[in-house]
Amino acid sequence: MVLLDGRTWLEFIPPAECWQLLSGTPVGRIGTLVDSAPEIYPVNFVVDQETIVFRTDSGNKLRALGRSPSICFEADELDLADHTGWSVLVKGQAVELADGEGLRGATRLPLHFWALGEKAHWIRVLPVEVTGRRIYRRKTR
Amino acid sequence: MVLLDGRTWLEFIPPAECWQLLSGTPVGRIGTLVDSAPEIYPVNFVVDQETIVFRTDSGNKLRALGRSPSICFEADELDLADHTGWSVLVKGQAVELADGEGLRGATRLPLHFWALGEKAHWIRVLPVEVTGRRIYRRKTR
Repeated sequence: MVLLDGRTWLEFIPPAECWQLLSGTPVGRIGTLVDSAPEIYPVNFVVDQETIVFRTDSGNKLRALGRSPSICFEADELDLADHTGWSVLVKGQAVELADGEGLRGATRLPLHFWALGEKAHWIRVLPVEVTGRRIYRRKTR
Repeated sequence: MVLLDGRTWLEFIPPAECWQLLSGTPVGRIGTLVDSAPEIYPVNFVVDQETIVFRTDSGNKLRALGRSPSICFEADELDLADHTGWSVLVKGQAVELADGEGLRGATRLPLHFWALGEKAHWIRVLPVEVTGRRIYRRKTR
């Protein structure tokens, strides 16, 4: 860990703890490429056996995933008053769950989504790299 | 606006209101390309005349910006209990404020950052496209 400014510290979060943090978080953000430029949009998601599963409509987002399956997923929890928090980044490959056992398994996941149409397409992010960092305040006695 | 699920509605947010929302938000997320794959990381930022200004250390992030100046910036405010919220996406070009009036102006901005070293480099995102969407609940009488 690294002392940042005399009050807060930075540490890297091991992958197992990254997955634990993600499992307790309902919303994250997908980073994709659209016409060679990055875009970010929030999604509801669920962690399933160290993969990320989310749903999307047919449309621009799905087309972008088809063209550039290398995507990333980020989630964080930031305490704006305390200037502390954590952030996890999953880099990986997006695959659409089109049919068969993969899709049937996914539809049984506890994935609650808020909004935006029927969300007919199920996407799984197969992780290539999982990194996390946390900024925290040391407890003083 | 579009009725989503019988309780919540989706509307697009006009650019002027997007900037207003960003001005009241202390943390956003930068989307960049690193080795042709997207990455997302949280940043403290400030809105300056319809541009986004943030600071970064020399290192991977800065090198990535140099190679792929097409980046995006996202901020959101989500009510996890109510399933409502807004999200704004700014797509644009990153330019480093290296010296001269641009940098002197930037160092006077009220940009408070939490952490992570000296953050010696000032980056401005010149917007190409600003889009926002809001999911909200209609007030019932």
